Amino acid sequence: MDLTGQQIIGQGRSAEGPETFTATNPATGDALPAAFYHATSSELDRACALADAAYVALEKKTPEERAAFLDKVAEEIMNLGDALIVRAHDETGLPEARFQGERGRTCNQLGLFASLIREGSWVDARIETALPDRTPFPKPDVRLMRRPLGPVAVFCASNFPLAFSVAGGDTASAWAAGCPVIVKAHHAHPGTAELVGLAIQKAAAATNMPEGIFSLLYGPGRSTGMDLVKHPIVKAAGFTGSQQGGRALFDAAAARPAPIPVYAEMSSINPVFILPEALKEDAGQIAAGLRQSVTLGVGQFCTCPGVLVMLSGPETDVFLAQTATLLLESSHDTMLTAGIFDAYRAGFEKLDNKEAVDLLGHDAVQFEATGNRAVPALFRTDAATFLADNELSDELFGPTTLAVVCSSRAEMFSVARKFRGELTATLHGSQADLKAYADLLPLMAARVGRLLVGGYPTGVEVCSAMNHGGPYPACTDSHYTSVGTGAILRFSRPICFQNVPDAFLPSALQNGNPDGLWRLVNGGMTRDSVQ
Amino acid sequence: MDLTGQQIIGQGRSAEGPETFTATNPATGDALPAAFYHATSSELDRACALADAAYVALEKKTPEERAAFLDKVAEEIMNLGDALIVRAHDETGLPEARFQGERGRTCNQLGLFASLIREGSWVDARIETALPDRTPFPKPDVRLMRRPLGPVAVFCASNFPLAFSVAGGDTASAWAAGCPVIVKAHHAHPGTAELVGLAIQKAAAATNMPEGIFSLLYGPGRSTGMDLVKHPIVKAAGFTGSQQGGRALFDAAAARPAPIPVYAEMSSINPVFILPEALKEDAGQIAAGLRQSVTLGVGQFCTCPGVLVMLSGPETDVFLAQTATLLLESSHDTMLTAGIFDAYRAGFEKLDNKEAVDLLGHDAVQFEATGNRAVPALFRTDAATFLADNELSDELFGPTTLAVVCSSRAEMFSVARKFRGELTATLHGSQADLKAYADLLPLMAARVGRLLVGGYPTGVEVCSAMNHGGPYPACTDSHYTSVGTGAILRFSRPICFQNVPDAFLPSALQNGNPDGLWRLVNGGMTRDSVQ
Repeated sequence: MDLTGQQIIGQGRSAEGPETFTATNPATGDALPAAFYHATSSELDRACALADAAYVALEKKTPEERAAFLDKVAEEIMNLGDALIVRAHDETGLPEARFQGERGRTCNQLGLFASLIREGSWVDARIETALPDRTPFPKPDVRLMRRPLGPVAVFCASNFPLAFSVAGGDTASAWAAGCPVIVKAHHAHPGTAELVGLAIQKAAAATNMPEGIFSLLYGPGRSTGMDLVKHPIVKAAGFTGSQQGGRALFDAAAARPAPIPVYAEMSSINPVFILPEALKEDAGQIAAGLRQSVTLGVGQFCTCPGVLVMLSGPETDVFLAQTATLLLESSHDTMLTAGIFDAYRAGFEKLDNKEAVDLLGHDAVQFEATGNRAVPALFRTDAATFLADNELSDELFGPTTLAVVCSSRAEMFSVARKFRGELTATLHGSQADLKAYADLLPLMAARVGRLLVGGYPTGVEVCSAMNHGGPYPACTDSHYTSVGTGAILRFSRPICFQNVPDAFLPSALQNGNPDGLWRLVNGGMTRDSVQ
Repeated sequence: MDLTGQQIIGQGRSAEGPETFTATNPATGDALPAAFYHATSSELDRACALADAAYVALEKKTPEERAAFLDKVAEEIMNLGDALIVRAHDETGLPEARFQGERGRTCNQLGLFASLIREGSWVDARIETALPDRTPFPKPDVRLMRRPLGPVAVFCASNFPLAFSVAGGDTASAWAAGCPVIVKAHHAHPGTAELVGLAIQKAAAATNMPEGIFSLLYGPGRSTGMDLVKHPIVKAAGFTGSQQGGRALFDAAAARPAPIPVYAEMSSINPVFILPEALKEDAGQIAAGLRQSVTLGVGQFCTCPGVLVMLSGPETDVFLAQTATLLLESSHDTMLTAGIFDAYRAGFEKLDNKEAVDLLGHDAVQFEATGNRAVPALFRTDAATFLADNELSDELFGPTTLAVVCSSRAEMFSVARKFRGELTATLHGSQADLKAYADLLPLMAARVGRLLVGGYPTGVEVCSAMNHGGPYPACTDSHYTSVGTGAILRFSRPICFQNVPDAFLPSALQNGNPDGLWRLVNGGMTRDSVQ
């Protein structure tokens, strides 16, 4: 399949502008085929105008029709076959097997949202029937449900070229809510974006969707991305990436004449607490699990465990030595881009140069001259240093973790209190540990989006009970998850219908409950019709 | 009951600062008893520190304990007796009967939230149980529920000294979620605030709540209010008031190092469409209803119908003349403050001076010299003028409405499309009208928080199916209602628990379902326990 590098605007293609860029293979430094055109402002306007029209047209599509579109997108992504896997590998340095997995997850996400809207109860229908004889005032008939917010901008993530990019979780959840989506491609994997975009274009045509349900634009974040978030037609944005990038979009959106929400999932160091008994019982297993979690995707996961919190003692020294050895023995793999690699190396060296931070197991670290290959590592510091040096709380994006060794239980709680906004926290503890450290659970729950006992934070289950979010700076809005069915709430809002005759109500709110939804009727959950 | 004008900080009182202000009776211009102290920054810090401690302490209180507190607040407000009613009347010029009603609504709101948390299903518990044998990866046990966000700042509203002030809807919903509240009193009714604050202080002591669950501060919005929204301990704010005030808070909150949500309900002109057949059949009734709705609370309701949209014709001329007469005959009542009255008079005169806007039924309007008394009025313009002059879409806070007369159905749709963010829209139409104008319903639904067929937007039903919100500038965040049980969602966020042993889970997520909640378990709604 030949790439053209043109914008996808509804059912059309467009390459109006003079500027282009190419993708680079981070393992070789070679330019990959196809020049990609920066979107012009008139191309962006056209995509937005089509999205605005599609927002109205989508209101007339049934949930089944929208679900069929989601399923068709998944089918067309699978139809891309190996071309997609190969291009994604070439653009990212990540292994092909990883993309087979990520493609499966992406299609499953689309299917999950298709099921969600087929079942339909996500609209949170609430009905309170009239009490015309109530005194002093009659009670009106009042009915509430969630409806789509409007056109949504989605920014592709560097680290999930499929599952958090063109047809990823943000896009799938926005479509499921009934919102058209304009995607801004990531400069690191524009070819992957184009392939998926073409699959979507086909699916939209085949399922008779309004063409503006999807457009794909190329261009720099600071111009194309900013213009998109400032466009009056756009009503929300989804982003996964750096704190700097997410915050810039958030600030621009908040400064609009009519502000819009930017759901940015940004930065997290995902502390892992290893409590004394668990360490005694499971040190080997925890070390092996940590190595796997820290190096997964070359440490380029949002949920990569960046900090270990432990009590000092001989078992801790042995455990850290063992973990350091496992990381030392791990392969040096290519990171997503030269820029990400450079940032990793700079952060690594900054840590290494800190007086009170030790790099375990290495004498001196040699980064290879080519291939943007990360060296996995374990650093160690003490609690006092961690508490005093705010830089140690910054995310270092890559396969590195920092062990913070505490001299007492009280110091461990002080370290815990320093965390303010994380996607996850993990506690490794026996039942006795959990009892002895019972206050640690609510303390960390208040600071994170997800609390794990045992296991590792990487590998985010896509389901109805997931929360991938958390207080700032993990996310710009801790009310929402970007993974799992709850993600649809970001792109919908409640609308109340008062005394609207049954025939003019959306089906979700009609007396007969033709969609068979779970609804809150006069205070009770039921699937019955309203008498 | 003697007022002291001191801050209420937890169970203490404080008056550290040198600056004071007094309340003014807007009907007489007289200063009312008691000098109120502007909060100092150390007082604000103390209130915040207590709230932070209370946030942790509240986690250990059961929903029943928190519900008992809400009920007790209502009881203590009733125990204030006539002193509260008289002071609120003196501070606002609104009749005592109005405050008997508003007090009832305030206590009912507290009771509604007490019932909501006693029942408990609002936490939206979701459980997906483990599948250890799933391939390629085992599925973990994942459980989700909503938990309190943190300390909340609430700003008293000028127009609802009880129901949207110290113990109003914002405060009740934040407490219900488990959040401590720091209230910033409104300068127009500080005595009402103190009385309610004292009732809350008593209730907190009687029900053994952590003292930081409530504080009340006095001071200017641009200093005390801003400092509160910028305080790192504060995690969200609720506001009802002007667009300027709400936006200033929103901007300050968005610019924080860690941004927080400001739920500001601000500005709305609440269009009422009167369709042809309804006008023929019900002109007299609609005119009478409109008069009542427009003049309710001297037009100082967020949902006051500020615009009528109609087709031109002889029936329209007769209807408007009749409505103008009814408004002309209405009493001239005292507005909440001299400032609000001055803004009303200035806006009124600005409208009156517009070439293409007619003041119906008046030759010249005389505002009385004293008493800040509003003159209710009906203005008329044509659709072309309304579409061209953006000032005509500005809210004029007071008992005035503007009839926009359209020469065609198409022009009516153009007017409809001009609305971008309203709390409400109302359609008066027969069944035949609604069929003929079927596209008007979704068009307006996309622009408002609540859509009414018949009736009037004032009188917001406090229930599970209400939405008092809408796209900007009606609100800063259209995802949430500030009236009804949904308001609790603003002050809570999801937290996911992964592989947490049953004994360490919050009761809402335990297998046995000890609280008897409706939960989403493996995709199905149920109150059963998990096997």
